[in-house]
Amino acid sequence: MKEDEPAGPKVEDLIAQAKMVLDFNWTGEYTRPGPRLYPHQWSWDSALIALGYARYAPDRAMRELSHLFDAQWKNGLLPQIVFNPDFAAYFPDASFWHADESPDAPTHLRTSGIVQPPVHATAVLALLRNAAEAPGVRSFCEKAFSRLVSWHDYLYRERDPGGENLVYIRHPWESGMDNSPMWDAILESMFLYPSDIPSYKRADTHFVSSEDRPESAAYDRFAYLVKLFAERNYDEARIREDCPFLVQDVLFNSLLCRAERDLAELARTLGEEPSAFEARARKTAEAINDKLWDGERGTYLGFDLVSGAHIKVLAAPNFVALYGEVPDRKRARAMLARLSSPSFSLTEGTGVPVTSYDRLGFGFSSVRYWRGPVWVNIDWFLMHGLRRYGYEDEADRLREAIVRLCREEGFYEYFDPTTGMGHGSDLFSWTAALLLDVVLEG
Amino acid sequence: MKEDEPAGPKVEDLIAQAKMVLDFNWTGEYTRPGPRLYPHQWSWDSALIALGYARYAPDRAMRELSHLFDAQWKNGLLPQIVFNPDFAAYFPDASFWHADESPDAPTHLRTSGIVQPPVHATAVLALLRNAAEAPGVRSFCEKAFSRLVSWHDYLYRERDPGGENLVYIRHPWESGMDNSPMWDAILESMFLYPSDIPSYKRADTHFVSSEDRPESAAYDRFAYLVKLFAERNYDEARIREDCPFLVQDVLFNSLLCRAERDLAELARTLGEEPSAFEARARKTAEAINDKLWDGERGTYLGFDLVSGAHIKVLAAPNFVALYGEVPDRKRARAMLARLSSPSFSLTEGTGVPVTSYDRLGFGFSSVRYWRGPVWVNIDWFLMHGLRRYGYEDEADRLREAIVRLCREEGFYEYFDPTTGMGHGSDLFSWTAALLLDVVLEG
Repeated sequence: MKEDEPAGPKVEDLIAQAKMVLDFNWTGEYTRPGPRLYPHQWSWDSALIALGYARYAPDRAMRELSHLFDAQWKNGLLPQIVFNPDFAAYFPDASFWHADESPDAPTHLRTSGIVQPPVHATAVLALLRNAAEAPGVRSFCEKAFSRLVSWHDYLYRERDPGGENLVYIRHPWESGMDNSPMWDAILESMFLYPSDIPSYKRADTHFVSSEDRPESAAYDRFAYLVKLFAERNYDEARIREDCPFLVQDVLFNSLLCRAERDLAELARTLGEEPSAFEARARKTAEAINDKLWDGERGTYLGFDLVSGAHIKVLAAPNFVALYGEVPDRKRARAMLARLSSPSFSLTEGTGVPVTSYDRLGFGFSSVRYWRGPVWVNIDWFLMHGLRRYGYEDEADRLREAIVRLCREEGFYEYFDPTTGMGHGSDLFSWTAALLLDVVLEG
Repeated sequence: MKEDEPAGPKVEDLIAQAKMVLDFNWTGEYTRPGPRLYPHQWSWDSALIALGYARYAPDRAMRELSHLFDAQWKNGLLPQIVFNPDFAAYFPDASFWHADESPDAPTHLRTSGIVQPPVHATAVLALLRNAAEAPGVRSFCEKAFSRLVSWHDYLYRERDPGGENLVYIRHPWESGMDNSPMWDAILESMFLYPSDIPSYKRADTHFVSSEDRPESAAYDRFAYLVKLFAERNYDEARIREDCPFLVQDVLFNSLLCRAERDLAELARTLGEEPSAFEARARKTAEAINDKLWDGERGTYLGFDLVSGAHIKVLAAPNFVALYGEVPDRKRARAMLARLSSPSFSLTEGTGVPVTSYDRLGFGFSSVRYWRGPVWVNIDWFLMHGLRRYGYEDEADRLREAIVRLCREEGFYEYFDPTTGMGHGSDLFSWTAALLLDVVLEG
């Protein structure tokens, strides 16, 4: 075990605390991302949580992912939210989504009608790597394999109509980075009449300071997009015709690149054919490099398919291309230089690395969700990404930041990069799960 | 005199109060826009203030405008700020601008190196109309006429390189609407290294709550642009090569259209040739109609020359095209419908008309400067604009709003559209001056 700073609880206590956070949020079928703010199952939260369970509780990992796969749509869509019927207070609730409008949606339980970034193959592979001998793991992975193939096929079939090997997302929630400044210009250009905005009542700002959460004008647009999908019965071709939010996002496509490679390795281990997944991973990496690289900023930028222009916003999630092993050495060096600048404080500069958005950026806020605060999942992706390119010191600096934040501030959803203070939901599951993955990694 | 609501001071007292605000800010040579926040002379403030003086104190109007014309650059540029050497605390101060880098800048006093919207011909015409017989007015207007011609010639020569009959602005401050959401996407795409941002110390947030003022990331970019101009010795052609902010703004061009027509009328009255100004006004109106009209939003949108796209943001200043008599009847009707919607609350909906930005817009704030609050100058332009198209009731509603805000809240810089509360600088000169113009208009 790496020696960690002495301040705060010893590592053993920290591990015990993290496990208690996950126990606290465990519902018996899945783990809530946060105790009050997030009562249902969220897709990429569950995958990141399963990564943590894979280190010490493979049975929980399998039940977490099975509950999600059980809600998979017939066309392969892995839903962003699987609703727990016991919790109605959350907005938007199941009835708001009208997912039942789609012939593909499951009927035995209710889900939302969008997706989240694909880290599920990565979680299943971690299970196979860390707990291959545990009872039931092998057979679970074999069943999960076909679910994952159908999920990735859905993305390439439905979200890459031009065959560019880049998939689009159609709602800020699909990026997982709901109110990132990356979406500002698109949301600003979404001009709404009052009649466009479905009536709704937010629940989140009862649990957390509204300063920490997206602004109401953003929520109007989130709700508007959901209504647009439901009115088109979730028919992707019809949605694509006039959906104002269609983005080839860097994080989403980089994680898909990583997930395809992990799917190929799963295939090799399970005696399946890996080459198709390797080929798709290679083509996606090529497409990210050809279309999304921005030399001036030294990283990749998302592409807005509606306005036909790159999204000129410098945000940390775009560096997760390192985790997908997308850049060559030269570009990885440029990305490290940018991460090490005061914009993200990976090495020099003040504050906790890394800010989720350029500290000198026009839209920076040190407390408002994805507009600047530090997120453990982004640090985790970048830590692993930097290690793959041999940048051990920088990777260690992120590892220390994850441990120090959990030890000194607690298992919060995100953290103020200047003060370190925790914000958003407390007892946040993926913060605890990724801390466990880091500390138990040895 | 129109009968106004009884609540608060009677009209005579309100008039006396307004005159005292202007006396309070009168320095002996010009009128400060606000007592603490704005110690120097500002260009379009002075023109709007002169409009008020033209009703009762023509001598003050002439001295106000003479002080500004005295600072006119050799190439015709009428500077945004004429610095009062007694006040050094304001940022950015004269030394920050380095206006002396330009061979055109005056040497006997110091100015900034940018402009503000052209309402000066309108002010001189108001003087000639309301106080033609007062001593010295006629000869002042004759001298002012050549100054105004050189000022308008500067705009068309230096700021319309393509001969489109649309002039560009090159700094948010030139629009007069410093932090409007209209500039967000451009400021967001201005990617700055720490070394790009000149060191500076803001003074404004000592006088007024920072909630009311632009955010610091905006100020970094304001300072960056000033440095860019100074480094190019204010050579417009060199600036134009890589200035990231080049916008054909609707308000600026509409006021220029109005000012050219007023210059033509001045010419007629003073025995000069009017036709060149009428022709330019007509061509500018045509260009605004051909290039900037947006059917979906029912108004005009600014054009970003750098990204080559319209600025898809719905803001009240864009309706000032009515004041420039730019739209035909059909478009004027569409603009009225939009102004009367909940976005701006001119007739139905809640709150004080009109919000400076779409109340349902992504960037709306009810207190932060140009991101929603009500400004008396915009209401004044729209009031006159609507009257020119025969919309008397709506014009009266704006007149009542101006009187009621001054009577019930005070002479503030801007007002919260939901509560009516005053924000920004108190004792704001153009609020008092335009109140006087409205009430003394009879």
